[in-house]
Amino acid sequence: MQENRNNVADQPISITRDPFPNSKKVYVSGSLHPNIRVPMREIELTNGTRFTVHDTSGPYTDPEATISVEHGLEPIRQAWIDQRQDCESYTGRTVQPEDNGFSRAETRWRYDGLKRTPLRAKAGKNVSQMHYARQGIITAEMEYIALRENQKQALLTGLDQERENRLKGFSFGAQIPREITPEFVRQEVAAGRAIIPANINHPELEPTIIGRNFLVKINANIGNSAVSSSIEEEVEKMVWATRWGADTVMDLSTGKNIHATRDYILRNSPVPIGTVPIYQALEKVGGKAEELTWEIFRDTLIEQAEQGVDYFTIHAGVLLRYVPLTANRVTGIVSRGGSILAKWCIAHHRENFLYTHFEDICEIMKAYDVSFSLGDGLRPGSLADANDAAQFGELETLGELTKIAWNHDVQVMIEGPGHVPMHLIKENMDKELKHCFEAPFYTLGPLTTDIAPGYDHITSAIGAAMIGWYGCAMLCYVTPKEHLGLPNREDVRQGIMAYKIAAHAADVAKGHPGARQRDDELSKARFEFRWTDQFNLSLDPETSRSFHDETLPKDSAKVAHFCSMCGPKFCSMKITQEVRDYAEKLHVDPNTAIDLGMQEQSEHFRAMGAEIYVSPTDES
Amino acid sequence: MQENRNNVADQPISITRDPFPNSKKVYVSGSLHPNIRVPMREIELTNGTRFTVHDTSGPYTDPEATISVEHGLEPIRQAWIDQRQDCESYTGRTVQPEDNGFSRAETRWRYDGLKRTPLRAKAGKNVSQMHYARQGIITAEMEYIALRENQKQALLTGLDQERENRLKGFSFGAQIPREITPEFVRQEVAAGRAIIPANINHPELEPTIIGRNFLVKINANIGNSAVSSSIEEEVEKMVWATRWGADTVMDLSTGKNIHATRDYILRNSPVPIGTVPIYQALEKVGGKAEELTWEIFRDTLIEQAEQGVDYFTIHAGVLLRYVPLTANRVTGIVSRGGSILAKWCIAHHRENFLYTHFEDICEIMKAYDVSFSLGDGLRPGSLADANDAAQFGELETLGELTKIAWNHDVQVMIEGPGHVPMHLIKENMDKELKHCFEAPFYTLGPLTTDIAPGYDHITSAIGAAMIGWYGCAMLCYVTPKEHLGLPNREDVRQGIMAYKIAAHAADVAKGHPGARQRDDELSKARFEFRWTDQFNLSLDPETSRSFHDETLPKDSAKVAHFCSMCGPKFCSMKITQEVRDYAEKLHVDPNTAIDLGMQEQSEHFRAMGAEIYVSPTDES
Repeated sequence: MQENRNNVADQPISITRDPFPNSKKVYVSGSLHPNIRVPMREIELTNGTRFTVHDTSGPYTDPEATISVEHGLEPIRQAWIDQRQDCESYTGRTVQPEDNGFSRAETRWRYDGLKRTPLRAKAGKNVSQMHYARQGIITAEMEYIALRENQKQALLTGLDQERENRLKGFSFGAQIPREITPEFVRQEVAAGRAIIPANINHPELEPTIIGRNFLVKINANIGNSAVSSSIEEEVEKMVWATRWGADTVMDLSTGKNIHATRDYILRNSPVPIGTVPIYQALEKVGGKAEELTWEIFRDTLIEQAEQGVDYFTIHAGVLLRYVPLTANRVTGIVSRGGSILAKWCIAHHRENFLYTHFEDICEIMKAYDVSFSLGDGLRPGSLADANDAAQFGELETLGELTKIAWNHDVQVMIEGPGHVPMHLIKENMDKELKHCFEAPFYTLGPLTTDIAPGYDHITSAIGAAMIGWYGCAMLCYVTPKEHLGLPNREDVRQGIMAYKIAAHAADVAKGHPGARQRDDELSKARFEFRWTDQFNLSLDPETSRSFHDETLPKDSAKVAHFCSMCGPKFCSMKITQEVRDYAEKLHVDPNTAIDLGMQEQSEHFRAMGAEIYVSPTDES
Repeated sequence: MQENRNNVADQPISITRDPFPNSKKVYVSGSLHPNIRVPMREIELTNGTRFTVHDTSGPYTDPEATISVEHGLEPIRQAWIDQRQDCESYTGRTVQPEDNGFSRAETRWRYDGLKRTPLRAKAGKNVSQMHYARQGIITAEMEYIALRENQKQALLTGLDQERENRLKGFSFGAQIPREITPEFVRQEVAAGRAIIPANINHPELEPTIIGRNFLVKINANIGNSAVSSSIEEEVEKMVWATRWGADTVMDLSTGKNIHATRDYILRNSPVPIGTVPIYQALEKVGGKAEELTWEIFRDTLIEQAEQGVDYFTIHAGVLLRYVPLTANRVTGIVSRGGSILAKWCIAHHRENFLYTHFEDICEIMKAYDVSFSLGDGLRPGSLADANDAAQFGELETLGELTKIAWNHDVQVMIEGPGHVPMHLIKENMDKELKHCFEAPFYTLGPLTTDIAPGYDHITSAIGAAMIGWYGCAMLCYVTPKEHLGLPNREDVRQGIMAYKIAAHAADVAKGHPGARQRDDELSKARFEFRWTDQFNLSLDPETSRSFHDETLPKDSAKVAHFCSMCGPKFCSMKITQEVRDYAEKLHVDPNTAIDLGMQEQSEHFRAMGAEIYVSPTDES
């Protein structure tokens, strides 16, 4: 008997580092910036070919990389940032006990191991990618992203023209070029249609882009545990999420040790990290929303910007006049940030201080290149509240704020719902594009029904795929535990898989060049009974292989010319191959008709003893 | 220590009969046909109200019902059928050893316990529901369905006009009345826009309807196990699927004992049973497709019609001329039936015998009221093959066959794909409506990407929800094991849940009257912290409760005014309630603006010691 392993807390936590099966990390170099090395995962197939896929897992899946959470990842961007000569290092803010949720007298959790001297823009400088883009500068980050988006696949061809026309996609106005060039990246960032969340204090970042003319991205949320026994455990949550495909991670930790935890997550994260600073600010005032002040909030922004947070959710659109519009809702205000600010507005009968201080916030954002994620504090929490006056009122205000941020060359994306029935999803995308001037949209789902708690990764993957197709740039995942509890590792994987599916289905439908090639590779492997390739090309090789093994565990089944659904006697794929072999003998143009020699051929075929059944060699 | 229960085969199999929590079975009587009793599930909520939901689980969840798989369910339709006086009982076909997959000499598996004397139409009579409908007759089945579709909810109102207008849905031309009347059911069946699969030899059936002006239905596939130890085990698969919401079940069993298994499934099934008769016919000729004959196929149709199968998948659209169109496909022909018939066509260089004998098949269908499910044998097995010439050629032929069936007053639905990228889904629905004259569409998914084996319930739920919204009448489920292996009980549940979500999301988006009421009820329960009601109103009360209990297992948490995502200190729902209470005190019209007394109110509010934090009483 194995010892009881059911209790997750009993299991030793270490950082997951196994490379994916038959895969190796390859790096592509730049030409404008020869020192950049863009990571991709190359899958070696059993037919001797290779296939490269987008890879968010960072150095963790590279066996050559040395990993130490106490040391952090290699700061690959440091040289790029230094070369720009527009930053200065400075002493920075002194970390306070209350940053970690302790009283002033408390001295525990002083992790100084990862403390770095922060950078900020020199006086009068703006270090945002948008600012560079508008100056006509193609940064290393921009070239990095161009190579990454192409995935070495976009330029492949070989499809016949009929199929190409049939499958080219419909983009609802998105303009995706056949090849993503560094100059195209620059133009999109300059126009505000895409953002590169990349704080100058997060040099460990492997840059990525969020915009509707690029691959659809997904975000995974993580939070600290009250019972966490180690820093490894907190870092592993981020590693686990990026392993399965999270393009960005939001750290929604609250309570004790959050400053220290954030340091460890940032120093070890290859993907952009987002936060909701109002959560930490609220803790600093003992949870009393009405005691929040601009000064405390500002101090928190600087605290987190110095650590390297790449984007901030800022609920500056929750205006005093919108709050009463939620009173008749079925589910009121469900956003935490939204409800905190609604309460502040009403308690003071004053306008939201994030709104009135918005230009001040912009000054901070551009000194570190933190991107705005303008929060939808009034998003609907049920179908009944979708697309109502409160929601769309706030969206218009977010558009107004977008213009202000852009005046400062600060990058912006817009958060969206939430719970929305299918027929009202497109209106969200259309209104966002219109009122927010094509700034990237970043939605939570949306969930297309309220009736399936326990399965909300599915209710929301439906809406996420649709809004991704319509033009949404990033999809915030939902796990099966949404509305019910805290996700465990398997819930996180389930949520990410649902969202990788939604994002990829959207890329295919939009016609992103090269997106469908992975589908074609996998389907070819399936059709040719290359089981191992089918597993390895899939989003989750571990699960697909284990599901197959439940029915046919023997290794011989991995090369068997049948699948477990039908068994060795009754496989439609096998039959089709015979039909195809036969049709080839006819020398007909398959797009026209059957040739005249068919009657003879069919007699020959029967004379050869045509068999549908495959001789079962392993039918145990 | 518990003993090892991992081996499913070790577990005792019995029929699942637990009623759903806080639920009871209620029956609604007819007025045209006072003897009909339409079952619904009534959920008792903790606020003293009740909520009724559609219920496919049959008598199994009624503690009053006596269940014996050896006896079968009560034949509730028998009196309705007898009253029509257009049927006769007759000796019927003698069951042959090969019907059960044995050689002529074999005598095992002669289950005579459930053998019934079959009925058929009297000479010159047609017993199809379509025939009655076209005569202007409202059958008991039709009134039953009208009551069932209304769910006692469609007539409820109480929503304000603003919300009603915002959420009324968009139906793409479907015409769903505010109340489903028996006469409306008759009209839809007469027009061919809906079918009632209801073989006169399946009197145990609780009738249901499939059509785009009704609730979207889902189908679950089951198959026999080579290792099955008992009849209970085979019947339990059907019971399990209908418990979670399968509206129809397709029995795709092959191999030994399939005739006997089918008898047991039919005699115990409250939902329509569909089959693919070509599978059994192929077994009767030793698996050699080219040895299939019309006579053997015809005999199999009669065999299954006498048992009571409600709909047959017939691949009569796989024409000789379409087969070479599949040769350049990435995944050829993936439908089992399609590949069998393609092989037959090529081997004989003759037209598909199901096509040439289609009128003969109609004669059988109308003698028992078996409905056609016209099979899409050339459906795409990968995104690359979606919407190609082979697929749409076959679809046009299915339309031609629909007209022929309708000339015989035989009911028809049309099967559809498969694997289709999102942007090509609507074309499938549009072409089906056009070429098949609005006959109900019944699709498998479609899967919106090929890259996620292990998660194809999700890849396909996305496509299923969309095509359901566009007008698809029934969605054939896909389990996580699709392409990989045989689904177990949990896989079946996962597949059904994904499809109940897709169907319901479609009903809501189409604007089916009353569909969204369950969403509203659940969301209200969520907002009011009625945890138990939230679980019990959900599609899967078991899973939603257990997910909640993982984080907060204590009973006190079920009435706690916080949710486990935020904990007792930080709950946005709690905060919103306070905001609402506050807004109410203002006496403002929430749709206009803030009243003049607000400044004073806010001062009073603060003077009262406004708190966001809830006093934690159970924070362990």
